[in-house]
Amino acid sequence: MTFPSRLEQTAKRNKSNIILALDFPFEKVEQRQKLLFTAQKVLDAAHPFLCAVKINHHLTLPLGLFDGVQGLVQKAHDLGLLAVMDCKVNDIGATNQVIAEYYYSAGFDALIANPFIGWEEGLKPIFDVADKTQRGVILLVYMSHKGALDGYGQTVVDAETGEKTSQYIIFAKKALQYKADGAIVGATYPEKIREIRQILEEKVPIISPGIGAQGGEVEAAVKAGAKYLIVGRAVAQATNPATAAKEFRDRADQAL
Amino acid sequence: MTFPSRLEQTAKRNKSNIILALDFPFEKVEQRQKLLFTAQKVLDAAHPFLCAVKINHHLTLPLGLFDGVQGLVQKAHDLGLLAVMDCKVNDIGATNQVIAEYYYSAGFDALIANPFIGWEEGLKPIFDVADKTQRGVILLVYMSHKGALDGYGQTVVDAETGEKTSQYIIFAKKALQYKADGAIVGATYPEKIREIRQILEEKVPIISPGIGAQGGEVEAAVKAGAKYLIVGRAVAQATNPATAAKEFRDRADQAL
Repeated sequence: MTFPSRLEQTAKRNKSNIILALDFPFEKVEQRQKLLFTAQKVLDAAHPFLCAVKINHHLTLPLGLFDGVQGLVQKAHDLGLLAVMDCKVNDIGATNQVIAEYYYSAGFDALIANPFIGWEEGLKPIFDVADKTQRGVILLVYMSHKGALDGYGQTVVDAETGEKTSQYIIFAKKALQYKADGAIVGATYPEKIREIRQILEEKVPIISPGIGAQGGEVEAAVKAGAKYLIVGRAVAQATNPATAAKEFRDRADQAL
Repeated sequence: MTFPSRLEQTAKRNKSNIILALDFPFEKVEQRQKLLFTAQKVLDAAHPFLCAVKINHHLTLPLGLFDGVQGLVQKAHDLGLLAVMDCKVNDIGATNQVIAEYYYSAGFDALIANPFIGWEEGLKPIFDVADKTQRGVILLVYMSHKGALDGYGQTVVDAETGEKTSQYIIFAKKALQYKADGAIVGATYPEKIREIRQILEEKVPIISPGIGAQGGEVEAAVKAGAKYLIVGRAVAQATNPATAAKEFRDRADQAL
């Protein structure tokens, strides 16, 4: 079964389209056991209101992929959730292949990659490893931060048509062409979600980060066409992660 | 002292402008102790012919940043080399800040970032952490693989002048504007090195990966304006890493 099918099935079963980003502030390495406990505690509390967790270098760097993080991925699976590695891969092919093999072998169901690296000796080796191991590749199409305008928002001369086009439109078309398993579009830019959704239709699900701390709104993102919503600090660093996750889940549920 | 000054001083003292990329193939996690030994052995053998080592996820993922890799960084320092983390950071600001703090706290003298993320809530937090900790930020300007053409080589409408410009020219100008501590330009594209060098002059040193396995030539890269050369597999995976490193060092020495 493909990653999008598995994610959809999990979302239906768990009655949630919320992906929790387990993002925590920098901690001294001496504190990493505490950090791991915190991550486990948040996951335990919030899991009934999630379909997946997303892990970033906030955890892989202090804990180690095969030391702390692999256990968290296993825990997510045990709790009936999928696990996405937000590594935003953007290296040369030989390195991307090794990166994909490590993350998938640690159990991740999908990883996030940056289409800016191009196809040949860039994205292709990632998709090859994903095909071989039956995992997913999610492509960045428009990120959630202010500076996204400089890159994702820039105007580009389309290499095929010669026409001026927005970078994110080109990325959206590539997501379709490469049969990506998801497209990241910041919830902070609902108008971009709408435009990208017109290209992707039902073929590539839009996954929107930036809900909560970054100012993205569940309702606006969903209305514009986002299928899954990524919430990070607003749940992971909440006083009561379960309550916070439930609230986002309910709002998404109502909006979808 | 700034990173470029320290790198220049180290290169003079060690009589080498070669940076060794400690890149190894994917290994099962059970083999990671062997992988660490191999990395240590290669570093021990090749260090007299180097000014720095570059570490990528080939090692951080299996070994862990604070388990195996921090020790390798320490070893590089003990051997009189600098250590660069090739993480190609390209996330949102809050995450980039955490990533930079972890890598610098593990001892890295500089890290590599992707200017595609833009400045605000993108590169700025990385430069802020680098300033605070007196470390370096090296920006990608043109990568060494084939697919680099799709992104780094695309034609962009310059947001300031409205003119059609190559993406890498915009990145080179940003490297200058942001006072980057180095610019990555693939040795596989000497004509790009030449063009970028005209923009950067002596202000931002060009560091060229892709020498050896990827087909880049020391002489062509140096003649075009590269100051430092990154060699990976051709040394790290050579039967005799010392001989291989010495050969690249001698060729660079002659060309510089």
